[in-house]
Amino acid sequence: MSDSDCIAQALELAAEGLYRTSPNPRVGCVIADSGGLVLGRGSTQRAGGAHAEIMALRNAAECGHCVVGATAYVTLEPCAHHGRTGPCCDALVDARIARVVASIADPNPLVAGQGFARLRAAGVLVEVGSGAQAARALNMGFFSRMLRKTPWVRMKVAASLDGVTALHSGVSQWLTGPAARADGHAWRARACAVLTGIGTVLADDPRLDVRAVPTDRQPALVLVDSALQVPLDAALFGAERAVHIYAAVAPDAKRRALEERGATVSLLPDVRGKVDLVAMVRDLGRREINELHVEAGYQLNGSLLHAGCVDELLLYLAPRLVGEGFGMAQLAPLAALSQAQTLAFHSLDRVGDDVRILARLQGRDHF
Amino acid sequence: MSDSDCIAQALELAAEGLYRTSPNPRVGCVIADSGGLVLGRGSTQRAGGAHAEIMALRNAAECGHCVVGATAYVTLEPCAHHGRTGPCCDALVDARIARVVASIADPNPLVAGQGFARLRAAGVLVEVGSGAQAARALNMGFFSRMLRKTPWVRMKVAASLDGVTALHSGVSQWLTGPAARADGHAWRARACAVLTGIGTVLADDPRLDVRAVPTDRQPALVLVDSALQVPLDAALFGAERAVHIYAAVAPDAKRRALEERGATVSLLPDVRGKVDLVAMVRDLGRREINELHVEAGYQLNGSLLHAGCVDELLLYLAPRLVGEGFGMAQLAPLAALSQAQTLAFHSLDRVGDDVRILARLQGRDHF
Repeated sequence: MSDSDCIAQALELAAEGLYRTSPNPRVGCVIADSGGLVLGRGSTQRAGGAHAEIMALRNAAECGHCVVGATAYVTLEPCAHHGRTGPCCDALVDARIARVVASIADPNPLVAGQGFARLRAAGVLVEVGSGAQAARALNMGFFSRMLRKTPWVRMKVAASLDGVTALHSGVSQWLTGPAARADGHAWRARACAVLTGIGTVLADDPRLDVRAVPTDRQPALVLVDSALQVPLDAALFGAERAVHIYAAVAPDAKRRALEERGATVSLLPDVRGKVDLVAMVRDLGRREINELHVEAGYQLNGSLLHAGCVDELLLYLAPRLVGEGFGMAQLAPLAALSQAQTLAFHSLDRVGDDVRILARLQGRDHF
Repeated sequence: MSDSDCIAQALELAAEGLYRTSPNPRVGCVIADSGGLVLGRGSTQRAGGAHAEIMALRNAAECGHCVVGATAYVTLEPCAHHGRTGPCCDALVDARIARVVASIADPNPLVAGQGFARLRAAGVLVEVGSGAQAARALNMGFFSRMLRKTPWVRMKVAASLDGVTALHSGVSQWLTGPAARADGHAWRARACAVLTGIGTVLADDPRLDVRAVPTDRQPALVLVDSALQVPLDAALFGAERAVHIYAAVAPDAKRRALEERGATVSLLPDVRGKVDLVAMVRDLGRREINELHVEAGYQLNGSLLHAGCVDELLLYLAPRLVGEGFGMAQLAPLAALSQAQTLAFHSLDRVGDDVRILARLQGRDHF
């Protein structure tokens, strides 16, 4: 295989970690000899487990292949720090890998070029850049958290073709079909956390866990609940995962009761007595949330957009015309169309009978 | 070239007539010898001009090719009647064409199999079916008018990603970009008529003619104007084309003044004193309108949908979130989402910075 084939395969291995590696990045590694023969393959395991490079070295050893003088193709700079695991660049040097082809430098300030420097210092040839865009896209949340200190925030909305998300009676199930709902679960599964609001909890009592696709871990659940109204028997407590509740007021008894249910309760009031959403998103960055998947209602969607907290919109459009109802987000009335929030279409696909649109808020991916 | 290559080329020739042949169908013809060598090509001209078969025979003659014993590939059954031109099947027989490969039978009751019968009676081998779907799709309006007696009605809407078509102040220009606007003109150009409502005329005073793409003919303009309020100096009178106005009341003086401007005025009141839209669409069928391109506002869009007059939605979505404003169509509030009008996505494309979605109202293309 050529260099670019090896990197392409390493990217596929990286993508295998989509539902698994959080809060670590999804990384893949292929080790090949100078003739392009693949000796080992690896993909980063769950946090605390082995990184892709270690998995590839182990795989090569299991297959009885000698990797001395070989090339390691890796989709992210090998780590140079002792985190939960030993530094990968030391392992590559110890294995006498001669050349490392890496897609992109690690944005983690604990790595940030040190991995490459350490490899070069040990006489390893290092080339960087092949597959950089795909490697970054796969780890948008990790890059965001490392460089902006906040998660990559994706707002999921299911609407009719004319933009209605719910009838004025509150009924919203089901606009989209089963394929779109399963696809939505896949997007939940790759997120570090799913965020919703108390309005949605009181109206629909959703679990908001990942059910429609197989996953070894459940994303955390983040609840925006200014007045701490969430019932102790809400369905969202039924899933095995961390639950973070952000409130503006927190009566002691209720707070204790929620903490006994395993939730963390954070008080982040803004001047209007609501949750300070900007501060909350920063706090979620500190909690190692890379991708934040928002499934909220009309009001909270509007507040998040208004606060500038949203990076992209994941929109499912059902082939229906509803007419009257709630829209996607409660936004302040505009005096001119030029004041509208501008996005750029990122992808456009059919999912079952529905359409999936991914659109990014303008300028949000420049980090 | 193989049979299917010849039909594919004939379909391309048919598509050349997209802005030209109305109210006749768009038809292409390729004449090839038994070795697959192309002898002549033709595409149907403007109404009253030559059909595709005649053009292909002429082209072969101009090139000095003998077509005796050749095969004619044609995207629609050759006509058997004396319309504005002589019957094409007679011309093919006279030219001693040995075989006709046709995509689909002509739905015109004046032809309807008679063309094939006449060819077979003259000893010509006739095969039907290759490219049928594409040939019909290219002539959806013609098939609709022949089989349902009404045009194929396409409703064009430009909206923000969240389904807003205009601010509550009425401002709607410009949500979509120049590429989408030019694309919209191409869809106007292929229609026999463009329909709008008096609300749009009074608010925006649009010309609604084809400017952004080159065309030899302008579609007719249809105006729904129950109270005959259209100003005599409205911009829509500025283009060279037929103007049909449908009203529910028509004071003599205003009517005469409009007719002096070249418009036809038809009185079609319903019981509520509005224009009877179902009767109007039938009348437009009688006026040989194949494809009717609707560019109306929130209210008339809703009335057309409510009356069951719409076959498909041509939707341009701009990458913007507007929030408050008018939606795509004023529809009656629903008690349940299951009551929503259901469509099926037909195509999905990017046009400049915008997205174009073509979706068909369920069950409308079964004719």
